[in-house]
Amino acid sequence: MSLFDENPVVINLGVDVFADELRDQGVDVLTVDWRPPAGGDNHLLPLLELLEERAGAQTDKANKECLKRIGESTAVLVDVRRAGDVVPGLDDYTVYHAGAPLAWEEMCGPMRGAAIGAILFEGWAATAAEAASLAANGRIRFDSAHNHRALGPMSGIITRSMAVQVIRNDVHSLDTYVTLHMGLGKVLRHGAYDQEVQNKLRWMNGEFAALLGRAARAAGGIDIKGIISQALHMGDDCHNRNKAGNALLLNALAPHVVSAGSNTEAIRAITFINQGGHFILNPVMAACKGMLDAGANIPGSTIVTAIARNGVTTAIRVSGAGDTWFRAPAPMINGVYFPGFGPEDANPDMGDSAITETAGLGSMVMAGAPAVVQFIGGDAAFARETTHRMYEITQGEHPAFSLPALDFRGSPFGIDARKVIRTGITPVINTGIACKRAGVGQVGAGITEAPMECFVKALTHLAAFKEESC
Amino acid sequence: MSLFDENPVVINLGVDVFADELRDQGVDVLTVDWRPPAGGDNHLLPLLELLEERAGAQTDKANKECLKRIGESTAVLVDVRRAGDVVPGLDDYTVYHAGAPLAWEEMCGPMRGAAIGAILFEGWAATAAEAASLAANGRIRFDSAHNHRALGPMSGIITRSMAVQVIRNDVHSLDTYVTLHMGLGKVLRHGAYDQEVQNKLRWMNGEFAALLGRAARAAGGIDIKGIISQALHMGDDCHNRNKAGNALLLNALAPHVVSAGSNTEAIRAITFINQGGHFILNPVMAACKGMLDAGANIPGSTIVTAIARNGVTTAIRVSGAGDTWFRAPAPMINGVYFPGFGPEDANPDMGDSAITETAGLGSMVMAGAPAVVQFIGGDAAFARETTHRMYEITQGEHPAFSLPALDFRGSPFGIDARKVIRTGITPVINTGIACKRAGVGQVGAGITEAPMECFVKALTHLAAFKEESC
Repeated sequence: MSLFDENPVVINLGVDVFADELRDQGVDVLTVDWRPPAGGDNHLLPLLELLEERAGAQTDKANKECLKRIGESTAVLVDVRRAGDVVPGLDDYTVYHAGAPLAWEEMCGPMRGAAIGAILFEGWAATAAEAASLAANGRIRFDSAHNHRALGPMSGIITRSMAVQVIRNDVHSLDTYVTLHMGLGKVLRHGAYDQEVQNKLRWMNGEFAALLGRAARAAGGIDIKGIISQALHMGDDCHNRNKAGNALLLNALAPHVVSAGSNTEAIRAITFINQGGHFILNPVMAACKGMLDAGANIPGSTIVTAIARNGVTTAIRVSGAGDTWFRAPAPMINGVYFPGFGPEDANPDMGDSAITETAGLGSMVMAGAPAVVQFIGGDAAFARETTHRMYEITQGEHPAFSLPALDFRGSPFGIDARKVIRTGITPVINTGIACKRAGVGQVGAGITEAPMECFVKALTHLAAFKEESC
Repeated sequence: MSLFDENPVVINLGVDVFADELRDQGVDVLTVDWRPPAGGDNHLLPLLELLEERAGAQTDKANKECLKRIGESTAVLVDVRRAGDVVPGLDDYTVYHAGAPLAWEEMCGPMRGAAIGAILFEGWAATAAEAASLAANGRIRFDSAHNHRALGPMSGIITRSMAVQVIRNDVHSLDTYVTLHMGLGKVLRHGAYDQEVQNKLRWMNGEFAALLGRAARAAGGIDIKGIISQALHMGDDCHNRNKAGNALLLNALAPHVVSAGSNTEAIRAITFINQGGHFILNPVMAACKGMLDAGANIPGSTIVTAIARNGVTTAIRVSGAGDTWFRAPAPMINGVYFPGFGPEDANPDMGDSAITETAGLGSMVMAGAPAVVQFIGGDAAFARETTHRMYEITQGEHPAFSLPALDFRGSPFGIDARKVIRTGITPVINTGIACKRAGVGQVGAGITEAPMECFVKALTHLAAFKEESC
């Protein structure tokens, strides 16, 4: 077929249904994958016009400053402390959780299970029923961990007697906090709370946390940002695949763990960090938050500084709108299920771990982590395409995180809400699938996206302020 | 341009000079990268005809058996022992070295330096001059380590008081031996032999080796083949890039090192294994040899079972010719030099580490290890192309070593000398560049090839036997 043949040729832009009908009638059709900006939405186009044209230069300047601050940030594991002593506002009868704030009545099964587990661990109740009743009667204060410089994977539950790793961003004098990763199987973050879980919580937050704190201090801090940079050259996406990062962290910690504890304690600690395989995920999450928070609150910036899911809603923050959450119903995950489980067991998307994608990791770097498809589905071509697609909605390339498979190009960095709206491409999130029933644990892993609705709300909010000042 | 246009089109096969001339004359030229089989050599074509046609089925069957034996082999680090107690024939006044056998008079600078260092370490001489004189006077028996189930990187020097790691191939009841990797900088394998080197040799082959042996035994062995499989999913080529494999080895060893030694010894050992970054290379090399030796001595097989370089010649073995070495002058390395060094400092290709390429690692898996180009030169496209080119000269895909970037395709496995001759493609080797002056150490890294002459000699040898039996 040629455009200069005698037969008529129709060039079809966008929606394929027309092309299919024409083909049925024997007409040659060239299909071009084109979508109108902002989906042709009459509400959004003026907002884009404002933020890209009229206030474009100003927005670009704000975004540049935002990326500079995030990019220059450091992230060092400097200590392990009792959460109540360092995490702001984490008092008695207070429970922080993943995602945007929500009430006990709204919470999904695994988050309720994890909250019950934490209440039992704190000794605020003696039985699960009593714990649930405390929560239902308003005796427990719930809030988003993200609102208090902390975060966590899955339910992300933190209470005061838990140990948190302290990740320091020296450049911007910011500390962020995250609990210790509990390993796989029956774990609090998936809502398990029985005696076995309680025993593990006691060891982890007691002997193990104390040893880890001594080791981190003796090491003079462990450079988590440096480990991320190296792990990206070793096939990790630093979200669902953490094999390299975890090994590097343990290599760095091991001599200090040995010098800081008895042989028995050291062996227990080394074995625990090695076995779970994802111990590094938690400090990486806090590292990402610490870097992104440095870029928050820059007036006019459309860069996304957080994506977080509480199992009911997915919420985002954009730099120019500070701590405001822009929410939409949490999507389900298109995934690969463990044997014996299926979509009917799945909870909607949950956890603060999408902070990794927000910081230029996870789905953003799949091109360099092709082995992650074994876990979340897809193939090597899909992994490459995902990274290339993410470059379309990001503002820059990360100065410290690079991809050897793309000739050391920096990872897609700084999701720009304007670009998400204009292209219709939403950020991909690689994630685990939690069982919707408390305590069962992970039932699979897969791929989902941050809903467009979050970005529409964020842009509307930013444009309203901008319109006033224009 | 189309083949059906009215203008004449010339299709040019092979040599580009014709195409260039025609193009100058305004003729359309399609260039096809085609080379005559065996370079059109009148001597080689009948050999290929014999081994591919008349005795083809028989050769294919032998090669299939060879690959089966190599592929099913295991490789477990089971112990660390005094070389003199386990390596066959390693008596007093005996020095084993890398590559095919060669006399003291023929040896290059760094290999002589390393031999002197070993003689001093053994106490057979008190000064370097005395050691050199012993060697020159025929008082030292030199032989190829490969001839005695051992091998080593660079000069590959082994003497009886050195410790060797014992790698066991359970399936074929084969033990292979390799010294302990000494780290970077001033090291014996590059021909350094001063007091600092002697002190390090004493600690490594004393306290450290004893602790490592206790740890390996306590662990019930460390699965080196399993670590290789994982490291290939983590960006290692398992020859020049060993970051992941080294970290995984240390993770597996650490708890046993802690339980087998004092805190001080354990910290020294863990720090040493971590710092060098390539400690795993030596057990990987012995693992490769142990697997490949299982495929040796299969009558009629044209599969390459060793590539080894002594700094003067590169030599190969093919399964059907048993222990016979087929040699050619060792090529120089096309490389990237460390600051302050250049090609004038370089020794020709040296060391037994090309056993990794022979076993389906190193250059064979560059497509999955794009970060290695930082070290040896090239870019990501070159890395992918190299792996694809190596599939053209290999007989199969490795059953245990796979590449996520190629959708988990098995690595190019089993170099077939027939295919090397037919295609004119020689095996690529990723390697370090040794300074030609003893004791200076590594001056760069790069890429070279096993010379075609080795394969021509091997095929001629095999065809002679085959011709008799046909």
